[in-house]
Amino acid sequence: MTTPDNTYDVIVVGAGISGLSAAKLLKESGLNPLVLEARDRVGGRTFTVKNKETKYVDLGGAYVGPTQNRIFRLAKEYGVETYKVNEKENLAHHCNGKTKPFTGPFPPMWNPLAMMDFNNLFRKMDEMGQEIPREAPWKAPHAEEWDKMTMEELFKNICWTRTGRRFATLFVNVNVTSEPHEVSALWFLWYERKFVGGSNQITECMARELGEQVILQSPVCSIDQTGVMVAVETLQQQTFMSKYVIVATPPALNLKMHFKPELPPLRNQLINRVPMGSVIKCMVYYKENFWRRMGYCGTMIIEDEGSPIGITMDDCKPDGSVPAIMGFILARKCRKLSVLSKEERLKKICEIYAKVLGTEEALHPVHYEEKNWCEEQYSGGCYTAYYPPGILTQYGRVLREPVERVYFAGTETATEWSGYMEGAVQAGERAAREILHAMGKIPKSQIWIDEPESVDIPAIPFKISFWERNLPSVGGLLKFMGFTAFLSVATAAGLVAYKKGLLPRS
Amino acid sequence: MTTPDNTYDVIVVGAGISGLSAAKLLKESGLNPLVLEARDRVGGRTFTVKNKETKYVDLGGAYVGPTQNRIFRLAKEYGVETYKVNEKENLAHHCNGKTKPFTGPFPPMWNPLAMMDFNNLFRKMDEMGQEIPREAPWKAPHAEEWDKMTMEELFKNICWTRTGRRFATLFVNVNVTSEPHEVSALWFLWYERKFVGGSNQITECMARELGEQVILQSPVCSIDQTGVMVAVETLQQQTFMSKYVIVATPPALNLKMHFKPELPPLRNQLINRVPMGSVIKCMVYYKENFWRRMGYCGTMIIEDEGSPIGITMDDCKPDGSVPAIMGFILARKCRKLSVLSKEERLKKICEIYAKVLGTEEALHPVHYEEKNWCEEQYSGGCYTAYYPPGILTQYGRVLREPVERVYFAGTETATEWSGYMEGAVQAGERAAREILHAMGKIPKSQIWIDEPESVDIPAIPFKISFWERNLPSVGGLLKFMGFTAFLSVATAAGLVAYKKGLLPRS
Repeated sequence: MTTPDNTYDVIVVGAGISGLSAAKLLKESGLNPLVLEARDRVGGRTFTVKNKETKYVDLGGAYVGPTQNRIFRLAKEYGVETYKVNEKENLAHHCNGKTKPFTGPFPPMWNPLAMMDFNNLFRKMDEMGQEIPREAPWKAPHAEEWDKMTMEELFKNICWTRTGRRFATLFVNVNVTSEPHEVSALWFLWYERKFVGGSNQITECMARELGEQVILQSPVCSIDQTGVMVAVETLQQQTFMSKYVIVATPPALNLKMHFKPELPPLRNQLINRVPMGSVIKCMVYYKENFWRRMGYCGTMIIEDEGSPIGITMDDCKPDGSVPAIMGFILARKCRKLSVLSKEERLKKICEIYAKVLGTEEALHPVHYEEKNWCEEQYSGGCYTAYYPPGILTQYGRVLREPVERVYFAGTETATEWSGYMEGAVQAGERAAREILHAMGKIPKSQIWIDEPESVDIPAIPFKISFWERNLPSVGGLLKFMGFTAFLSVATAAGLVAYKKGLLPRS
Repeated sequence: MTTPDNTYDVIVVGAGISGLSAAKLLKESGLNPLVLEARDRVGGRTFTVKNKETKYVDLGGAYVGPTQNRIFRLAKEYGVETYKVNEKENLAHHCNGKTKPFTGPFPPMWNPLAMMDFNNLFRKMDEMGQEIPREAPWKAPHAEEWDKMTMEELFKNICWTRTGRRFATLFVNVNVTSEPHEVSALWFLWYERKFVGGSNQITECMARELGEQVILQSPVCSIDQTGVMVAVETLQQQTFMSKYVIVATPPALNLKMHFKPELPPLRNQLINRVPMGSVIKCMVYYKENFWRRMGYCGTMIIEDEGSPIGITMDDCKPDGSVPAIMGFILARKCRKLSVLSKEERLKKICEIYAKVLGTEEALHPVHYEEKNWCEEQYSGGCYTAYYPPGILTQYGRVLREPVERVYFAGTETATEWSGYMEGAVQAGERAAREILHAMGKIPKSQIWIDEPESVDIPAIPFKISFWERNLPSVGGLLKFMGFTAFLSVATAAGLVAYKKGLLPRS
């Protein structure tokens, strides 16, 4: 089945942001790449659905933020606009059965002890994070000690109040779709050494640019490096040949491929040890934007074990149309509620929104969209992989170590914004440059390249007051609550659909 | 490629003990099973090598013990004999640079505080273990609390002495080839609710019985349940059809297959969350059995961070010929030493044996065999899967839940002796009976069947003295040290080879 036509310079496995970024760079460098994608669509863990009820909706990653300069570069190149998530009105904090509106980066903590406890925790976490090298977290001075601990243990050691611990749990749930007792403290502190952000639809533009060099519905089941060329085989029994391969899937999904020769022992075991998080993204549509009318922006932080949702954000279009609230079902709640029907989940979600916002209007949605990422064979979960205790120090060093002619991309292999779209671009471009270097086309010093700061979206310096700096620890909290810095590229989908004539030019 | 010839009642994925046990039972029940095996051999995590230097050697599981009645039943059926591992002479405990010979189930603990501490730990572990239901550990009264904890945390809470904690670490290393900080306490306590044991070559006899119904070198890459029959495809692009499928691989290796439709969300994530342990099995051969001459039986318990090996046993043939010592490189040490060459590992091993036994004779091996199970693509590691914190309570209940016409075997799905050969038989036969029930051939009450006690190898009641019961905790220790109960079925290989005329009838 192998013909000269089936021969390429580089085969990229996976048409997510990382794989497409790699292929784009390789093509621009004069090479002939091929991207093989298991699904019937590009985008990986970003996924935009278009229909008349929603116009367009991001059921995967959708948020980007300052310092994510690579993704802004791509957005700019394709004319994709970003917009600020609405937060003009009050945010809502629901706790102990009561909702308290608030503004600014702080949730209301009326108990001064809890406030100090909470801020102390975040200051400690910041300090610890500073010690951890971005490129090699396993080299941190306390790497072994912290890797043996879960975040739950760290919270137990640092927090004195239940309020502090409960909020810290939500913080982990929201940020890595896992539970504090599931994740290594070393890994989480490394992961949090940055700001919060999100994702896009830029992949469609990249895929269009690559044209026939992207083949959908072609799950790769075998990579054979025993010959002169690498042979890559799909479930459809097609064989493609190439000089190099980039595997741009989450590490755990390397297991979907049979390798010949077998992977080295540490990589063979690593890919068995980095599970994907658990999340259902839920979009509830309403006839009217009643929350804004009530003085709420749509952001709710919900601390209630009975609530399916832990955090929400407004998801109206930039012009305020198509009123919707986005909410995440996270970690333990995701597993518990996975067994329910879509309708049952919607009912529970509307009930908690009604309770938090104090209005029956929330009980009457006009439409519902959801995506349970746990059921996706070719993601394994979302947003990203997490490291259980003990793994990062033992296996981390082989995460992006090539195996002969096979190189590894995917946001999990990034050194900045790992787990985010930005990390996916960094990783894809880095893997492409590793191959350019292996081919003698660029020097080693050009594999890792810093990205200049976006002119349009500059990094926003956090304002820290005297009290914030001295009384409570703040950095981490600001990261969590700093929604002012949040932008959505969801318009991209609209733009693409518009250009394609899919949407009425109303 | 699908012909009527390629149609079977049941396709079994994996010709380890579990898959072959399932196929054997199905065939005996009048059905037509087919076993597809990825490797070029049967046996899975048991693996016997035959050559002139060793006659035969088990580089995978090799030990069985009382109460493992299913494996004894199979051994008896095939005329496979077992023998007691040598322990006539002293055992050796190496600690703080000194070797202390001892007999009986106790390692020498001269420090009474350490002894009390250590025994208290094992008594506590026993008590906790009693609370955990064998069939549904996630239903234990303290399931959530213990699942959030690692064994490291448990040790920190219970142990007061460094000696106690260090020995407890070795206990975890030896029993589950993982580190205490890597494993859920709930899972480990459940796993330890039984005695220590081992494995065999009975698979060759089962495979011979199944004849052409076992196909080697056929890694399954796809299971498609969308049609009237289930379609199972191999990397060799052969498609086989069946009414039912039994997947008899470690849970993590379910990922090697692409499922259509996709697996349900909890199973899709479970198989991403149960890594395989890390071990290199090392057999050092000597001209003479110098350790017995020196009064040592060959069992060494080595507590020394610099030692590659944590535990050894005599591996001479039953008649004392082919002098050899078996040693395990476990968990963290396995990952560290995986990067060395075979020669470098041998050198380090001989050096520690020389140090522990106090003789230069150990420095002069005549032959060396080893097997690093971490590099096996179709095992992922050995002996068995472990559960990081938080997984058992969240995902445990779907471990053996069928997905439409696909059923799950493999020792990890056993309720007794999970992780051992015995568990593999229990799981394989249970999965076969689940299908017999689904076909209406047996009632539901016959799916789970207790095994009568072996007449030849009765369960040995542990003798517990007044002091052992009251001063120190004992059960766990007895389990660990109870080598009197250890038998090896390594003779099986010899027997088979002899019958085949491969070995001289000397």
